Amino acid sequence: MSTGKINVSVENIFPLIKKFLYSDHEIFLRELVSNATDATLKLKHLTGIGEAKVEYGNPFIEVKIDKEGKKLHIIDQGLGMTADEVEKYINQVAFSGAEEFLEKYKDSAKDTGIIGHFGLGFYSAFMVAEKVEIITKSFKDEPAAHWTCDGSPEFTLVPHDKTTRGTEIILHIAEDSTEFLEEHRIGDLLRKYNKFMPIPIKFGTRKEALPKPEDAGEDYKTEFVDVDNIINNPEPAWTKQPTDLTDEDYQSFYRELYPMQFEDPLFHIHLNVDYPFNLTGILYFPKMSQEVQMQKDKIQLYQNQVFVTDNVEGIVPEFLGMLRGVIDSPDIPLNVSRSYLQADGNVKKISNYITRKVSDKLKALFNENRTDFEQKWNDIKIVLEYGMLTEPKFYEKAGDFVLYPTIEDKFYTLSELKESVKDIQTDKNGKLVVLYTSNKEQQHSYIDIAKEKGYQVVVLDSPIVSHLIQKLEADNENLTFARVDADHIDKLIQKEDSTLSKLSDEEKEQLKGVIENFVPKANYTVQIEAMDSNSTPFILTQPEFMRRMKEMSQTGGGGMMGFGNFPEMYNLVINSNSDLAATLLKAEANAQEELVKQALDLAKISQGLLKGEELTAFVKRSFERIK
Amino acid sequence: MSTGKINVSVENIFPLIKKFLYSDHEIFLRELVSNATDATLKLKHLTGIGEAKVEYGNPFIEVKIDKEGKKLHIIDQGLGMTADEVEKYINQVAFSGAEEFLEKYKDSAKDTGIIGHFGLGFYSAFMVAEKVEIITKSFKDEPAAHWTCDGSPEFTLVPHDKTTRGTEIILHIAEDSTEFLEEHRIGDLLRKYNKFMPIPIKFGTRKEALPKPEDAGEDYKTEFVDVDNIINNPEPAWTKQPTDLTDEDYQSFYRELYPMQFEDPLFHIHLNVDYPFNLTGILYFPKMSQEVQMQKDKIQLYQNQVFVTDNVEGIVPEFLGMLRGVIDSPDIPLNVSRSYLQADGNVKKISNYITRKVSDKLKALFNENRTDFEQKWNDIKIVLEYGMLTEPKFYEKAGDFVLYPTIEDKFYTLSELKESVKDIQTDKNGKLVVLYTSNKEQQHSYIDIAKEKGYQVVVLDSPIVSHLIQKLEADNENLTFARVDADHIDKLIQKEDSTLSKLSDEEKEQLKGVIENFVPKANYTVQIEAMDSNSTPFILTQPEFMRRMKEMSQTGGGGMMGFGNFPEMYNLVINSNSDLAATLLKAEANAQEELVKQALDLAKISQGLLKGEELTAFVKRSFERIK
Repeated sequence: MSTGKINVSVENIFPLIKKFLYSDHEIFLRELVSNATDATLKLKHLTGIGEAKVEYGNPFIEVKIDKEGKKLHIIDQGLGMTADEVEKYINQVAFSGAEEFLEKYKDSAKDTGIIGHFGLGFYSAFMVAEKVEIITKSFKDEPAAHWTCDGSPEFTLVPHDKTTRGTEIILHIAEDSTEFLEEHRIGDLLRKYNKFMPIPIKFGTRKEALPKPEDAGEDYKTEFVDVDNIINNPEPAWTKQPTDLTDEDYQSFYRELYPMQFEDPLFHIHLNVDYPFNLTGILYFPKMSQEVQMQKDKIQLYQNQVFVTDNVEGIVPEFLGMLRGVIDSPDIPLNVSRSYLQADGNVKKISNYITRKVSDKLKALFNENRTDFEQKWNDIKIVLEYGMLTEPKFYEKAGDFVLYPTIEDKFYTLSELKESVKDIQTDKNGKLVVLYTSNKEQQHSYIDIAKEKGYQVVVLDSPIVSHLIQKLEADNENLTFARVDADHIDKLIQKEDSTLSKLSDEEKEQLKGVIENFVPKANYTVQIEAMDSNSTPFILTQPEFMRRMKEMSQTGGGGMMGFGNFPEMYNLVINSNSDLAATLLKAEANAQEELVKQALDLAKISQGLLKGEELTAFVKRSFERIK
Repeated sequence: MSTGKINVSVENIFPLIKKFLYSDHEIFLRELVSNATDATLKLKHLTGIGEAKVEYGNPFIEVKIDKEGKKLHIIDQGLGMTADEVEKYINQVAFSGAEEFLEKYKDSAKDTGIIGHFGLGFYSAFMVAEKVEIITKSFKDEPAAHWTCDGSPEFTLVPHDKTTRGTEIILHIAEDSTEFLEEHRIGDLLRKYNKFMPIPIKFGTRKEALPKPEDAGEDYKTEFVDVDNIINNPEPAWTKQPTDLTDEDYQSFYRELYPMQFEDPLFHIHLNVDYPFNLTGILYFPKMSQEVQMQKDKIQLYQNQVFVTDNVEGIVPEFLGMLRGVIDSPDIPLNVSRSYLQADGNVKKISNYITRKVSDKLKALFNENRTDFEQKWNDIKIVLEYGMLTEPKFYEKAGDFVLYPTIEDKFYTLSELKESVKDIQTDKNGKLVVLYTSNKEQQHSYIDIAKEKGYQVVVLDSPIVSHLIQKLEADNENLTFARVDADHIDKLIQKEDSTLSKLSDEEKEQLKGVIENFVPKANYTVQIEAMDSNSTPFILTQPEFMRRMKEMSQTGGGGMMGFGNFPEMYNLVINSNSDLAATLLKAEANAQEELVKQALDLAKISQGLLKGEELTAFVKRSFERIK
């Protein structure tokens, strides 16, 4: 038997680190700026606890491009390293100084915001550089060190005459990575990854106008000076306490996050929890447009103020994916697989916490200023309705603030709605019938008929509404939803007393026969009803169940497959008490045909079904009549 | 000055490999099956060139779950390893045996399909296993070896009594990875990554019916036996020559790729190139539905028959993203960043090659069977039109096969269309005007008017058509497109001779005044035209330019921003030669109002603009008339 130790040869692993350490080469800059930030935060901590007897001052990090020399410099004013420390931290790949620091100072350093973990970040420099130099001077009274490595595992380490505290990393950018010598590319990267990091980052200069002197004459020309261009906001809103922030602060932070968004968000939710996990952040509800659009401005995920990703799948519940804002947590495992993420207990807790915070906030907004909440309803409903369908925990709470607006712009909660309509809209079997429209304009004539009866009509026009209705019906006994054009109104809400019929049963049969003569049976089922004599003589209705199943199938209903392909079926409801019905019975066959045709066309126009050639013919005929 | 060698400590790097080697833990199985495949392919090669004096036979790979023992076994019958080789290949992380093999046999082994590269794959086992065993017997006459490692860098290596050739890997699955002991999970993974790998992979057994014996009686019951369940197709269609494949072979391979797709693809394109890069594959044109849907069945990318990803962004030109099929290439750098991918010259060449192959194939299909191509046009046009907009190289070729169908279902190329309409549809300024409709049904009455003039109308109904028209106009001098409802037909194509006016200029002014009295000026511009007396008296038109800019803005036109928010503006075109015009001039004010109102309603109905309350009132009024 032999035992031994697995051997990792640096010659073998080094090329892999260069090629595959991160799937995205641009990450190197984030890593190096993170290291510079850590070096500065560590110094801050050590001066704070008195272990470093130096002036902390107002340190910043500088990123500098030397395009001619093909070099990129990252310079900090942090604690620096002695030659011994370089040996320890740099020459041993994957030895994390940050972990060691946090371990050593674990009592005092808990909230320092130190980023590093694995001691690999520095080596990402070799993804883009053919040679890397470190010039570093420790805050301790020791000479500066100069480390050089050309990407082979060989390095040199010599003294250096640097006298100022801190570390300078010099990357000699490789031929295939010269994009990282472009100012706009580096600027974009810093703004993407480092925009909210806690130490100021200087990148180049910008012009700033000098104040106009008091004695300036008429022909005074504004003078400009070069000032340091600080690309980050070291204290972003989410790191502060909600009590320290005004509404305006939240709005301006939104604009900082999404400079291309012109519209203000509707409201925000400040997240702040430190047990059982650490999470801060601000979520914004934007105005949702009805159009489906590529979502570019997504929620951003940070770890200790370093941008990580805008793919928050699994961390934020799916229905909140349309929100905007930031989440910052050191507790989210970032480099593991998505499927693992979804199974991870901690992550599930974060997702549940966010769901709960969002529903609490919505409830509070509703209670504090209901009018305002109602005004925002149409802009947020799609998120909330989707949440009810996909998050059971959200559905439980949604009863408190989800609204059902009527065509008169009254906004009811479900229980208020039930209370309001129960006396008049309960049918003879004790079922409470909620009438709704998916489109006030298109279904206007049907709404009119319902209104004449004194019924209320709610507007439910989200694309997923058929799924929601199905769920509400399942969870509320004796509650049923019917679209206004699903049947003749007296059939939608059946009462004991029915309208007297002017026609005998025989005459009704005769009328039905007349109409069926001129109407294609395949598309329409003729239905003779005794209604008020003033009611529309011909209307087309589409049975609720079939239509709803079709809609659910079209918007991706599990198990509804196949319904989408059913043909559109309509009922042609004839008011047997109408004057037109009487006229029809008495008329000659020719006249009957013309009347039925015109009446059917009008019924189709009401449903938006008269199209193409039929519509052209109808319009032509109608112009003939008025010329 | 000191020099030295950077040190990678195995204690530090090992935990990182376990956690971060691949962002997705499930990859481990792909890696181990790839190793098993390589071991088998190497043996095949060595027996082939006579270097291994053993029978190659019909080796397969077996994957076995031992749920009780919490173990997963991957067993091959490949070349195996001696104890010395285990020391060399396993105990040195990142030492690639595959690279060494290819280097050693570089002349003969070029096309062996060996997968390995970096010698890291094996270690991915530790992402899911707390302990890993290797039991391996080389094809050479040496004893088998048994290697064990518990995830620390310590290993043991002892002899083993295994006598059959090949390697068995035993993973002792860790507590947090027990999902990989589930049959469905492992089955899914094998089908995802290994479905087309070149060595048969056995996973469990399945029942197979025994053939019915010839002397079986009436009451014979089918008998079943367990047979090996081979999960892969080792010789997928794309690895064969097009000449060896029938249309049916392509169809059935499509079904193998996308078992949930019920519809046959329209046609396929077999890709096959080995210089300047290696690429094989088959692309299918599916029937495109008009609805935008989540695309699940995407093009799959393979590397030597191992599934890599279905994200082919950057490799396949964007406009072909809607196609289905496979691409297999060892030359695509897989683990580098997307932005790098897009800049990589090789990748750009691959993308160009695919574009060229697709346009060649389309041209061939068009030339070989134009009728068939025309029938498929509506199902493929969205891809081709999008390609014209986004790929200059495709646009150049598109003239040869992109079609413009007329409302009578004639299909023209652009040059044919120009030829066909140039005599009658060239206006007095020498501009050739192509009339089009975006919706045959909705614009029916306008199409009718154009037809009466003898003009041809083409159907252009893709959502991006306004962008395409804009481009065609820019590239074809004296060619202009106008939608049929963009103006009165005599204005769309202006000729020298104009219809005589029945009304004097004074009467026209008077008529205009009458109409403007009853029509809201903010929405309609009244335009009096002398047309044929039988032409519709009132029509609504919408100027081409403004409508097109609005459409372009809505479908994401760069630089069109803002147009989307312009209000809808219509022209109300009055036929001053119509009887209605004459009637209007003579009528009393009350009658005038009623006539204008009814005529405007009819004009709005023709454009689908009469809605809501106005429509309800119109229908009611019209029912009154016929009762």
